[in-house]
Order: sequence, then structure tokens, then C-alpha cells
Amino acid sequence: MSADRLSNMSKEVKPESVSLCPLGTTAAPEQELLCIFGTGDFGRSLGQRLLQTGYKIVYGSRRPHSCAPLPQGAQVTSHAAAAQSATLVFVCIHREHYDFLETLAPQLKGKVLVDVSNNLKKDLYPEANAEYLQRLIPGAHVVKAFNTLSAWGLQNGPSDASRQVYLCGNSAEAKQGVATVATKLGLTVLDRGSLSAARELEDFPLQLFPEWRLPLRLAIGLTAFFFFYVVMRDVVYTYVGQGKDISFRIMVSMANKVFPIVSLIMLSLCYLPGVIAAFLQLYRGTKYRRFPDWLDRWMLCRKQLGLLALSFAFLHVLYTLIIPIRHYVRFKIAASTIAKFKANQTLELDNTLAWRTDSYFSVGILGFGLYVLLGITSLPSVSNALSWREFSFIQSKLGYLTLFFCTFHTYLYGWNKFLSPSYYKWYTPPAYMLCLVVPTVVMVLKLLILLPCVDRSLTRIRRGWERTDPEDDSKNLLLT
Amino acid sequence: MSADRLSNMSKEVKPESVSLCPLGTTAAPEQELLCIFGTGDFGRSLGQRLLQTGYKIVYGSRRPHSCAPLPQGAQVTSHAAAAQSATLVFVCIHREHYDFLETLAPQLKGKVLVDVSNNLKKDLYPEANAEYLQRLIPGAHVVKAFNTLSAWGLQNGPSDASRQVYLCGNSAEAKQGVATVATKLGLTVLDRGSLSAARELEDFPLQLFPEWRLPLRLAIGLTAFFFFYVVMRDVVYTYVGQGKDISFRIMVSMANKVFPIVSLIMLSLCYLPGVIAAFLQLYRGTKYRRFPDWLDRWMLCRKQLGLLALSFAFLHVLYTLIIPIRHYVRFKIAASTIAKFKANQTLELDNTLAWRTDSYFSVGILGFGLYVLLGITSLPSVSNALSWREFSFIQSKLGYLTLFFCTFHTYLYGWNKFLSPSYYKWYTPPAYMLCLVVPTVVMVLKLLILLPCVDRSLTRIRRGWERTDPEDDSKNLLLT
Amino acid sequence: MSADRLSNMSKEVKPESVSLCPLGTTAAPEQELLCIFGTGDFGRSLGQRLLQTGYKIVYGSRRPHSCAPLPQGAQVTSHAAAAQSATLVFVCIHREHYDFLETLAPQLKGKVLVDVSNNLKKDLYPEANAEYLQRLIPGAHVVKAFNTLSAWGLQNGPSDASRQVYLCGNSAEAKQGVATVATKLGLTVLDRGSLSAARELEDFPLQLFPEWRLPLRLAIGLTAFFFFYVVMRDVVYTYVGQGKDISFRIMVSMANKVFPIVSLIMLSLCYLPGVIAAFLQLYRGTKYRRFPDWLDRWMLCRKQLGLLALSFAFLHVLYTLIIPIRHYVRFKIAASTIAKFKANQTLELDNTLAWRTDSYFSVGILGFGLYVLLGITSLPSVSNALSWREFSFIQSKLGYLTLFFCTFHTYLYGWNKFLSPSYYKWYTPPAYMLCLVVPTVVMVLKLLILLPCVDRSLTRIRRGWERTDPEDDSKNLLLT
Repeated sequence: MSADRLSNMSKEVKPESVSLCPLGTTAAPEQELLCIFGTGDFGRSLGQRLLQTGYKIVYGSRRPHSCAPLPQGAQVTSHAAAAQSATLVFVCIHREHYDFLETLAPQLKGKVLVDVSNNLKKDLYPEANAEYLQRLIPGAHVVKAFNTLSAWGLQNGPSDASRQVYLCGNSAEAKQGVATVATKLGLTVLDRGSLSAARELEDFPLQLFPEWRLPLRLAIGLTAFFFFYVVMRDVVYTYVGQGKDISFRIMVSMANKVFPIVSLIMLSLCYLPGVIAAFLQLYRGTKYRRFPDWLDRWMLCRKQLGLLALSFAFLHVLYTLIIPIRHYVRFKIAASTIAKFKANQTLELDNTLAWRTDSYFSVGILGFGLYVLLGITSLPSVSNALSWREFSFIQSKLGYLTLFFCTFHTYLYGWNKFLSPSYYKWYTPPAYMLCLVVPTVVMVLKLLILLPCVDRSLTRIRRGWERTDPEDDSKNLLLT
Repeated sequence: MSADRLSNMSKEVKPESVSLCPLGTTAAPEQELLCIFGTGDFGRSLGQRLLQTGYKIVYGSRRPHSCAPLPQGAQVTSHAAAAQSATLVFVCIHREHYDFLETLAPQLKGKVLVDVSNNLKKDLYPEANAEYLQRLIPGAHVVKAFNTLSAWGLQNGPSDASRQVYLCGNSAEAKQGVATVATKLGLTVLDRGSLSAARELEDFPLQLFPEWRLPLRLAIGLTAFFFFYVVMRDVVYTYVGQGKDISFRIMVSMANKVFPIVSLIMLSLCYLPGVIAAFLQLYRGTKYRRFPDWLDRWMLCRKQLGLLALSFAFLHVLYTLIIPIRHYVRFKIAASTIAKFKANQTLELDNTLAWRTDSYFSVGILGFGLYVLLGITSLPSVSNALSWREFSFIQSKLGYLTLFFCTFHTYLYGWNKFLSPSYYKWYTPPAYMLCLVVPTVVMVLKLLILLPCVDRSLTRIRRGWERTDPEDDSKNLLLT
Repeated sequence: MSADRLSNMSKEVKPESVSLCPLGTTAAPEQELLCIFGTGDFGRSLGQRLLQTGYKIVYGSRRPHSCAPLPQGAQVTSHAAAAQSATLVFVCIHREHYDFLETLAPQLKGKVLVDVSNNLKKDLYPEANAEYLQRLIPGAHVVKAFNTLSAWGLQNGPSDASRQVYLCGNSAEAKQGVATVATKLGLTVLDRGSLSAARELEDFPLQLFPEWRLPLRLAIGLTAFFFFYVVMRDVVYTYVGQGKDISFRIMVSMANKVFPIVSLIMLSLCYLPGVIAAFLQLYRGTKYRRFPDWLDRWMLCRKQLGLLALSFAFLHVLYTLIIPIRHYVRFKIAASTIAKFKANQTLELDNTLAWRTDSYFSVGILGFGLYVLLGITSLPSVSNALSWREFSFIQSKLGYLTLFFCTFHTYLYGWNKFLSPSYYKWYTPPAYMLCLVVPTVVMVLKLLILLPCVDRSLTRIRRGWERTDPEDDSKNLLLT
């Protein structure tokens, strides 16, 4: 990616690249002058963007005459001169090099310093970069801002996500000034309070899928367990029992047993917390008491759970579809055909079996179809286009339908195996039976909630009603 | 989903949740004070968001001292006191509890009341909530706004869709004031006129896929008809004729006949209205006369038609790919192999058949590939990134190519069956023949339009030219 | 699509269409009056949008009394009167009809003329429309703007992409005025400088996938070459050698050889430039020297390369999955089964073969799964939601993992064929061997870069450090 940014920078200074280099800048009198320290990728992109929005820009550099190519229309002078000329200074410099700024303290006195810096990893330094900067130049008003934007994002115009600018600082006036500039750039400003919030702002760009951790761990754990379970019951059991080595089945057959199991369990885990929350509210008779943290955390990662479940289902589908081209399967079929012929029995199609297998496939396909639909509607741009009612319809109603189809698919797979003891090797049930527990529970609970009486009181609770509250009018005033 | 919102609220008040709780609020003098009635999810989220944007917030509550957790930095007082202190009051209360506001009429006189309420279903009340509020407090300037936003959307920053704020009211000044606040929140304001528009605004969040209804009904209708048709011709016919029960084929074989048929018909129905519109314009010799409503409605749901067609095609693909693992198919193949062997004939590969089936599959796959491409480009975020010319290129040029591939795929499937009478059971043609009618018509018409002469005059018409207009210069001035 | 716009226009003027027609407009005193020339699709949509935002609108038309339906609340008069009344005039007229504006020169003197026009194709006229307009009415201040928006986009509210408004003009004040209007419409303004930029702005909407050209050409070239190569080695060779016609295999078998090959090569070409760039930086010892243009261009189309590679992989998967339902394959299997039986040998499952084929499939599936994941995360709305670190993690780390899986998949396919000479027909290697070259090279180079020593110095360089620089402190100040 770094190379990516570089390429943009070089692109930026190429005359033919329309979207980047301004073709000359307006010379209006009322233009405000802003100063930028540092002529790196970010400094250049920021300057260019500001120029396009109609600001005048002066860069502060140690080598005003021999620095990297800058956007057209910007001036370059020494840091001191630049600082003098403007009231707002963007500090686009690595923290490691802040120290030299101390020498500029007099020129920077009373100025607004915007700290846009980020670190390579968390907790690299005892204090936030912005706080460090403030300590270096006590006379200036340091504002932390723009650090969540990338040079790339600035160049190509603010996209939906990078349109948010978080800023914090101790001087409200200073923040106001920075906010104005940000708004002119077409960005949305969110004030995060005093400079003590700088650390959090600096940690934003460093986060790596925080909300995916829990679901991922869960998925890996389940996969590992069921893989072990299946290998024991199939490979090891067969080897011990008949001394036959069917280890090769690990690659596809076993994988194709584990993936659907994990997928179904995780899908049902998306809907379990909602059901639990409902019962908790029914039990408490109010919605105004907070849920236990574990439930909160669980509910906040439902989307991730669902998407992981979908990806496992996707793998399951592919693994299923390649079955007939597997060497092993072809061998088996040829063998059975020859055996049938040798036995010389007249072949009879088992209608029930045909019905069962076909419905098994059919239900599975429909379930997967809905699965994919859920996945698509959880794409940001799609869910944004949905009204709240539409979104909840798809995610809850269709979601439960998907869960039902997939569970039913599994039951059809089990069919009559549930009873015949021959399947309980070493007194353990087949894996797919284990995986049916959670979804079954979820659906039973959901059915209970759908009972008119239960449903009614739940709705009342969610609209703000409270069971044992003397003056519940006041509560009722709350908008759900 | 309600649980979802709850979880957010609880998340909101947790100190560790970076993205939500402000870490202290600016104490700038020029901060404006806004008042919020009601401390429910929405009221809290709104307040928090306003605090982050730099406003001062005072909540009005019946129980100022014992109400749900509120965002840091907000004050809470009685409704009366709160109303007094601010000129702009957000009423985040259920309509059922508006009545008590009447008592506050004196304090609310001349204030701007923002009604953000929604109802659980349409036409629950004779008049819109906002109009009801205005009637209760005639002295106040009621503005309907923000009701299309969700508490969730407010917390997580405005996303592309929820960035639109529709407002309406009778006082332009009041609306101006609310618009300013909305803009500061990074939202786009759309004035919908007088308060009489409130009803429509309140119906927005309640709509459930209005533009999908027609296509869905169509899809269901077609599916039902063809399913019946196919079952009659196959299952019933075989049963009556040979007394053989092949009902099990319903699950997969029949489904896999119906889905592609419906898919192809609906795909062609996406392109039929465009063609009709073109001919209508040619016939009228102008583009300035409105189309009949049915055509309008049809053209406005083309995207939905296409997406449904795609989903049916998707199911068709899955149903086709599981064919070889079906018990029935394996049985058939084994039987035929054994029969071949018994017959002891030397096997000869039919080259023509090989060519035909392979091209049949190949064309189908390419068609489906394009299908998927169309689907992807119709994702909001993708189509937004396309220039108008690019979008029309994909949706029309590639769209017709897809239609051609899929139709050709079906013709290859039919091959020589068209002529042999044995396929016309009970004098009815096979279903796939029926489904070929519409696409064939569409493509023939499209070819006509592409004829240079026709194309030329059509282009002229679409650029504003009119056939029999004395002073068509003036018309020509219209920009197409 | 033109029909599409038409439908919208007619929709617009239908009373029942909520989202479009304003239900009465505010009568606030401070409303500003804007003038629009031309009552075509664009003029009407623009006017309506402006009305909704709270402006007063007057249309200038040659036939004020008999022109197409206009948005409610707008007045219509003659061009002259309209021009007089407002200071800002939107010229929504085809360039061909500008000439008549010359007659309005006196009324338009000193006014701001906004040229929103586009042409049907590039370089249709010697000078840009806006420059032509300026030449016609030297007294007016022409500003080029809004031409990248569509009537459709204006009606349905600005979406993420169409939110950018590029404007250019010679008068800064005039541009400021237009910018204010644009901002009120919720659009982001980008000043592109003087009127000489008009041509570029007018070319924006006409571009047709400029960044896709190179990758597409490459894909087509590779496909053509390998198709020819495979056909020669298989069909022609067999025909010449054994006089057997297996041409039918072109449709599926050959296609399914070519697609995966092209896919793998293009995937590796996504990662090659990054590696080259790294080595170039290592060699130069700095990141501040621009890359050669060819490398820049290459790096800027990596995303497109990757998406094309994905689509080829997608086709490969489908072509693979239909194998077992092909007539030819079924014939082959039946034949071999019969042969086996005749030979009357006892069938023995080749465990190694089973292992190999299964792992071959398994690795392929996992690779494809990652492939799809990469594709999904490159959707605008998804990648926007990722932090910079998350995006680079997926696109580089997971990207290389994908490359590894797919390459390994191909090696497993080759297995022991690499050595047996029988596969080198006409002394040429099988196609899949050729396609292994690039990915292997890329991965070896990447491994070199990952060596601690190399990695360390590369990181230093990318943070701004330079090898042989006397005063590198100053350089160090640049923020990467």
C-alpha cells in the first residue's frame, strides 16, 4: 500500500492526471492563508486539497529550495517564516522530529497547531503525539485532527467512511477554526473533547478488526474441535477397527463435514443473543436496565458472526459440488456399478430415498440462497439504502427463515440415522447431531416469543412500558 | 433489531466505547443551547451527537433526578425549565404522550418544536403526529424533521443513505433554524414544504420495499404457473400415461426447469419497456409527452426485475451443479452403463452431441457470468462510482449481451426438440419453448431499433428534436 | 438509460411521487432568486432540487406559456426577463443553441453564467462549451460546474460519488457564488482553477473505464495467446498425430485450461509491481524519487487486474463444476467402467492419487474463497469502512496468501507431469507450466523482501530515511 501512496503522489504531480493537480488557483482577495509543516505525502495531499477548496497555502520546509515536488500554487519558505505568516499550522511531521519545533516556540505562540500524526503501533510512546506537541510548545493551541484520513483519501475526495473528522483540543476557539476548514473540505466534524482524547484518536487508524476478534476466535475454536472430533470418529476409528487407512478423506470429506457444522452453529449464535435479550427483558419487565456486558459484546458482533457463518457455508457448497469429480468418488461409483452388475440383481429406484435426497439438496440450496441474500444486504451501501423497517425485516424475519432452512437441511441429512445405534461409534453421536442442538434451542425459544401473549407484553416493554413502576407515565415518554 | 438498538444504547454509556461517548465537551462561550424532550434511545443519541458537534444540550424530563443514563455533558431539568432555556426544542416523545405538552403551551410559545416521531404502522391516527402537535400548541412553530434517521444511524455518524434529512413546516424561519442544525450534523437538508407534508415524511420509515412489490408478485405468479404447467406435463402425464410415479422429480428436476424459465422471462422484461418506450417516442415523434403510467411504473422497477431474475438464475446454477450427486441420477447412470454393457455394443462418442452439450454449458456459464457482473454493478456503491456513460454501457450493452447469451443457451437446450412432435405432450409445447417468446421478441425489436435509419431519428428525438413542430428551435433548447 | 431518465422526468411531475415534487415551498423573505435557462430534464431536476433547498427559481424559456411541465413553485418568463431578475443564471441548454444567447448579452452583462453542458463525444468542438459561452458573452462571468451530475442524481439526492462538484472559471467571486449554492445542495466543491480547465471537466462524464483499458487488453491478449497455444497442442496435435477430431473439447475443456491460467497470471501481476517498487526503493535508497511512468501506470491498475483475475477464476470454478454433467465425461466414465469390468481386475483405490486430487481440490477451493474475500473488500462501500491498516492487511497479507494457494493448487495439478517427457508435445511445455513462471517469481522476490535485514532497511526508507543524504534530518521531517 505504501507503494500505492507513492504512486499517487507521483501521479499527483503529473500534468495529465486530471483528478489531482489543480490547473491554476484562484487569486481571490478574501482567500485565507494556511501553513503546512512537512512536505511528505500527507502534507502534499492536504495542501493540494486545500488549494482546490480555495485556500492559499504556504509550506514550511528546512530546504525550501530543494524539496520534493509540491502542488501547484503553493509557496515554500522556511518553517519560521511560514509559521509567522499564518494563524493555522498543520504539523505533518513524524513525531520523532517534533523536538526541532521547540526552536520555533516564539513564532508559534498563540497559533493553532493541528497535529495530524499517527504512530506505527500502539503505546509506542508514553504520551499521545498531540500532548507531546503541546508540552513542547505550551504557547500554542494544539488540536488533534485529520489523523484518521489518508493521503489517498484526501486526494480522491472524501469517501463515505473517511468523511468523518474527529478532533480534540483544549481551546474551543482553536477547534472551531479547524472545524471550519474541515467542513469546507466537505468533511463531517466530530468533537471528541479535550486534548486528553488524543491518544484514542491516534489509536483509531491502528485498529485491526477489533469487532472480528471474538467471532474469529470462536470460528477457529469450533473448527478445531469438530475437526478433531470427526477425525477421531472416522479415520482413527476405522483404522483401529478395520486397520484401514482412509486418512485421505481428511482433505475433502472431513472438511465438508466440519464447515457446514460450524456454519450452522455460528448462524444460530447470531440469533441466540436476541432471544436471550428478549427473555431478559420479559423477566425484568423493563428495557431500561442495561444488559450484562457479555450479552452486549455478543450482540455487537452478530453481524461478524453471520458473515463468518456465510463464508463457511460458501466453502461447504463448493466442497459439496466437487464431490463427483473426486477420484475417490468415481472409483467408488465404478466399483458399485460393477458390483451391482455382478450381483445381477434388477436395479430398482428407491423412491423414498430419491425424495429424501432431493429435498435435502433443494432445502439446502434455498437456505444458501437466503444466506447469500442476508450477506448482500449487510453490505454497507445496501443496508444504507434500506429503511429501518426493511433492514429489520430482512435481518430478523428472513434470517430466521434461513436458520430454519439450514437446520431442516441438516435434519434431512440425518433422517433415520438418529436412531440406528451403528452410527454411535465409541458411544459418541455423529458430529452433525451435536451441531443441531443450538439451532433447535434458538428456534424453540423464538417460537415461544412469537406466542401472542408473550409477544404482546414484549412489544409493550420495548415501547417503554415498565411492569412494576408506580409512575410509569414518565417512562412512557421515552421514545423507543 | 430492537435488541440491536438497545445494545447500542448500553454501548453508548460504556466508558470504554471510544466511538460513542464524548470525553468532555468544549466550554466555548458562543455555544448554542438546544433542548430535548424525552430521554429515550433517540433523544439520547441525538443529544450526544449534538454535544459532539459543539452544542449545549438540556434535557426535559418528568423525573430529572432518576432518568436513564444520559450522554456526558448534558444537563437535565423539568420540561418547563428546559423549554424556557432554549428556543429550539426536539420533541423525542411517543405521540401517545403528546397531550401532556399542552400544559407547557405558555413556555413553548414562539419556540421551534422539532417533531421527530414515527408511528408503528401507517394510518394509525387521523392526522400526522406533527400536525397533531401543532394543534396542541398553536403558539409554537412545529417542524417535522429527523424522523427518517435512526438512533443507531445518529450514533455511528451519518452514512450515505441516512444523510438526507427531510423537513417540513409552516414557518420558513423555523425550518431555516432546524436546517442549520442538521447541516452542522453533516446532514443534507431537503425542504418538503408545508406541514401538510408531515404525513408523507412519517410514512417514509414505514415503507417495506414498495418498489419490489410488483416484481415480486410477477416472479411468484410466473413461478406458480410454470410449476403447475411442468408438473402437469411431466408428473401427471407420466402417471396417467404409464402409471409411473415420478413425483420425486418435483424437488429438483422440476424446480430446475421452472427457475431458469422465470429468470429468462424476467430478464427480458427488464429490457422490454425500454424498447416499447423507444417505439412510442418514434411513433409520437417527440420525447416531451409523458408515457402511460403503466410504462412508467414498469420502467421504474426494471432494476428489481433484473435482480430477481439474477437470483433465479443463481438458484438454477446451484440446482444444475448438484445434479450429479443426486441419488436418482447416479442410479440412472449405473443402470445405463450396465445396459450398455449388456447390449455389448461398442461405445461410440457422438461428436455432434458433445459439441452441442458443451457449447450449451459454455454459453450458459458466460451468460451467468455477465448476469453476476450486472448484479454487482447495480450495487449502490459501485454504480455511484461509475460515470453515467459507463453505467449505461454496462446496463444496456452488456445487459443485452447477457440476454442474448441466456436466450441462446435455451435455444441450444431445445436444439432439435422444437420439431419432433413427441415433445408436445397433450399438444402443449415444453415449458422452455414458452419462455423463449418474450426474449426473442425483445431482441428482434432491439435489432429493429439498431437499424441505422431508425437509430438516427431516435437519437434526434432524444436530443430534443420534434417531428411536426413549427418552432422546434425553442424545443431544441432543452437539454436532454 | 435515456428511457430511464425520461421515466424519471415523468415520475417527477406526477403528484403521487413523494420523493420528487415539493409540496409547496417556503415563502421566507430571505430566499435568493436563481435563474435557469432551458426546461429540459436537467433544468427541471436542478430547479426542483434548488426549490427543495429553499431557493426561488425563475425559468427562462422561449415559450413561457407552452413549455414542458415544470416543478411546482417555479415561475417561467422570457429569457430576457429571467436574466434580468437574477444574478446567477444556470444555462441548461445544448451547446448547439448557445448562439441565440448572444442576443441577451446586455441583460447577461455582469451576471454569473453557470455552464452545465456536456457533449455527446469528445473533441466534438474546437473549444470547450464554457469557453465558447464566455466568448459569446464576454461581459458575463462564466463558471463551468455541475456537468458531472445527472438529472437522475440531482433528483434522488446526492449519492456518495455524485457528491463531488468540479467547477472552474476566471472570476473567483463568481466561483464563490456557485460554490455556495452547491454546498447548500449538500455537494462538495472542488475548484479546478481557471476556465481553461473546462475542457477536462466536460470530458469527465464521457470517459469509459479509462483505468480498465490496460488490464482488459492484457486479459484479452493472454486469453487469445493461451487459447491458441492450447488448441495447437491438443486439438491440432491429436489430429495430426492420431487423425482424431477432438475439436469439441474447445468449448469446455480448453476454456477451462485457459481461464485458470490467465487468472493466475493476472493475480500475480497485481503483486509484481509492488515487489518491483520495493526493490527500486532499496536500490535507490530513497522513496522521494518518482517511479518510471510504466510502473506508476501499472500500480494504478492493480485493483482492476485483480478483479479481472477474480472473474476468470469464477469462470474456472463454474467450468470445473459442470464437468461431471458433460456428455463426453459421462461417456468416458461409462466406457472406463465397462473396460475395468471386462479386464476383470480387482479394483484397488490408489491412496496417493486420492490424497493428491483431494488436496488439489481443497487448496483450490480455499484459494478461491480468499479470492472472493479480496473481491468483496474491494467494493467501495466495504473498503471505505476499513481502517487503512485493515485494508492493507487484507489486500497485501491475504492477497499473497491467495496467490500462494492458487499457485500451490496449480503445482498440485502438475504433480509429477513436470518430469515425464510425454507431456512435452512438439517440445512445448503444457500451458499450466508456463503460467507458473510469474507467480513463482513474485513469491520468491516477496520472500527476499521479508528477510529481516531487507525488511528493516525498506521500512526505514518508507518512513522517509535516505541512504546517502548529507542533511537527511530535513528529509526525515516528511510524514510518510
